[in-house]
Amino acid sequence: MDEFARIANFFAPLSLKEPGAFSLTDDAALITPPPQASLVITQDTLVAGIHFIGNEPAHLIAQKALRVNLSDLAAKGAKPHAYFLSLSLPDIYDNAWIKDFVHGLKEDQERFAITLMGGDSTRTPNTLTITITAVGFVPEGRMLRRNSAKTGDIICVSGTLGDAYLGLQLLQNLIPPLQNPAHQQHLISRYQLPDPRLALRNTLMDHATSCIDLSDGLLQDLSHICKQSALGAALQLELIPCSEAAQALLPPSIDNLLSLATGGDDYELLFTLPPDMHTQVNQWASDYGIPLTVIGRMQSGAGIHATHQSENISLPSRLGYQHAR
Amino acid sequence: MDEFARIANFFAPLSLKEPGAFSLTDDAALITPPPQASLVITQDTLVAGIHFIGNEPAHLIAQKALRVNLSDLAAKGAKPHAYFLSLSLPDIYDNAWIKDFVHGLKEDQERFAITLMGGDSTRTPNTLTITITAVGFVPEGRMLRRNSAKTGDIICVSGTLGDAYLGLQLLQNLIPPLQNPAHQQHLISRYQLPDPRLALRNTLMDHATSCIDLSDGLLQDLSHICKQSALGAALQLELIPCSEAAQALLPPSIDNLLSLATGGDDYELLFTLPPDMHTQVNQWASDYGIPLTVIGRMQSGAGIHATHQSENISLPSRLGYQHAR
Repeated sequence: MDEFARIANFFAPLSLKEPGAFSLTDDAALITPPPQASLVITQDTLVAGIHFIGNEPAHLIAQKALRVNLSDLAAKGAKPHAYFLSLSLPDIYDNAWIKDFVHGLKEDQERFAITLMGGDSTRTPNTLTITITAVGFVPEGRMLRRNSAKTGDIICVSGTLGDAYLGLQLLQNLIPPLQNPAHQQHLISRYQLPDPRLALRNTLMDHATSCIDLSDGLLQDLSHICKQSALGAALQLELIPCSEAAQALLPPSIDNLLSLATGGDDYELLFTLPPDMHTQVNQWASDYGIPLTVIGRMQSGAGIHATHQSENISLPSRLGYQHAR
Repeated sequence: MDEFARIANFFAPLSLKEPGAFSLTDDAALITPPPQASLVITQDTLVAGIHFIGNEPAHLIAQKALRVNLSDLAAKGAKPHAYFLSLSLPDIYDNAWIKDFVHGLKEDQERFAITLMGGDSTRTPNTLTITITAVGFVPEGRMLRRNSAKTGDIICVSGTLGDAYLGLQLLQNLIPPLQNPAHQQHLISRYQLPDPRLALRNTLMDHATSCIDLSDGLLQDLSHICKQSALGAALQLELIPCSEAAQALLPPSIDNLLSLATGGDDYELLFTLPPDMHTQVNQWASDYGIPLTVIGRMQSGAGIHATHQSENISLPSRLGYQHAR
């Protein structure tokens, strides 16, 4: 099957909801944002062996590639609209693989109300590589930023941290399998299939003073908020939310908490709120069915000042996972 | 140098003209189009060994990756605004290479009035891979399409065809070097450094009935216009514009003309115009200093009907270069 047949047969059906995609026949797409809206555009590349293992089912690879971008949009308060996919595929991947890949995209298009509008499909000699560009809309001037946290703001995270990191360690056989298969599956699934926290979008746009999605680990990403906001952060390690599965695997020692806080691939949201909003956080957690945990507070100064049960803790020099290192 | 230092040192300086790029500190960019404008978005991936050889100077690789996208925008009548770059880099490429790559981008940003607004930077095990997403603006409803050619329209191309194909053959030592070094350099340069025909943008938006950029070869890309417009095309092979260098290398036999028409990588524009516009074509060529040649005419039916000095010519079954095959 040649490039054009592949696009027409597999990918064009994913584009039909948006007339501006021209059924992928025009090599470019047309987007007219709603009045008073701006576009938020984000682009992430996933490389087999670096950002995923490579032997995952194709639909999971597709969904991870899409969702890491949707997580970026969620962190900006942006409503997902469309995406562009560049798939660089070694010859060993056959049409059955592509079909499953497309099936994963189709499911997530429905789940997240987003449409494929363009991209590229090309051969590559060795390494499956996927670049997705996601486009979302925000009301003009409302995009959530990293540089706007204020002294005294409380620091919150969604979900639980470190699960994906442990899932990757399980997949790489770096740690022995868990006795409870549900725990095992939970951790692996958290690595393979992030859950972009788009449900929090409007609430965060109304209340958060800053926001970031956790892709490189809590410490690394919180340090971005600190640096961009020209502030420091006081972080209480013992408050880091851990799943039952993570707790079953690791006792909550300081070292273990630091591992969970630097492991990466969480795709949870970290956001700051004005000092008096503890109560609302609990209410939102209940409203949206998403765990939300206050883990610290922004303060003057620079960098992260971590404590565990009120004792000062030295942080590792490498704060998180860096795919380019 | 880690991912963040690399972005801050090398790539962030390319983003400073657009406040919505947030100096690449926010992992997403904000674009608000001008009133009554739509966005045109296109995305192309270049893989070393597939779309370029790999040993080219880094600045040429960067410029080719950017320009193939700008050529797409030119074909839509869109004014370039911004681009997103995903660079997947094997470890063997050092900071000097990245510096030269960035230098190439910087030059072209000035040449084409476009700004880097985001993207990704990641390791990859083997193969240098570059995905660029280019964003342009068109007045609402004015984007040039492939599906709107009319029966009787004349078919025009910019520049000369087949040079890049011959340049690639020279680089691959598939044909012996030319005696005239200027000819040799011309052909190689046409492969390494496409020249997106953005100067024609406004004129084509005002007059062309359809447009496409020639990336896969004249026959392949003209067949897209035919298919999308539900028409056929009468093509006079002897009218295909050839550079002096191409003519020095190849006598204008039918086989040679077919090679030039299927070789790909031209990044010239092919467009259709109402039947009576021959004179204007010559005037525009003179106004813009870009060769423009009428090579045929749209007609009812389907597919390309080629002639050479009025004799019918059978076309090869493979009409052009397909990177995904």
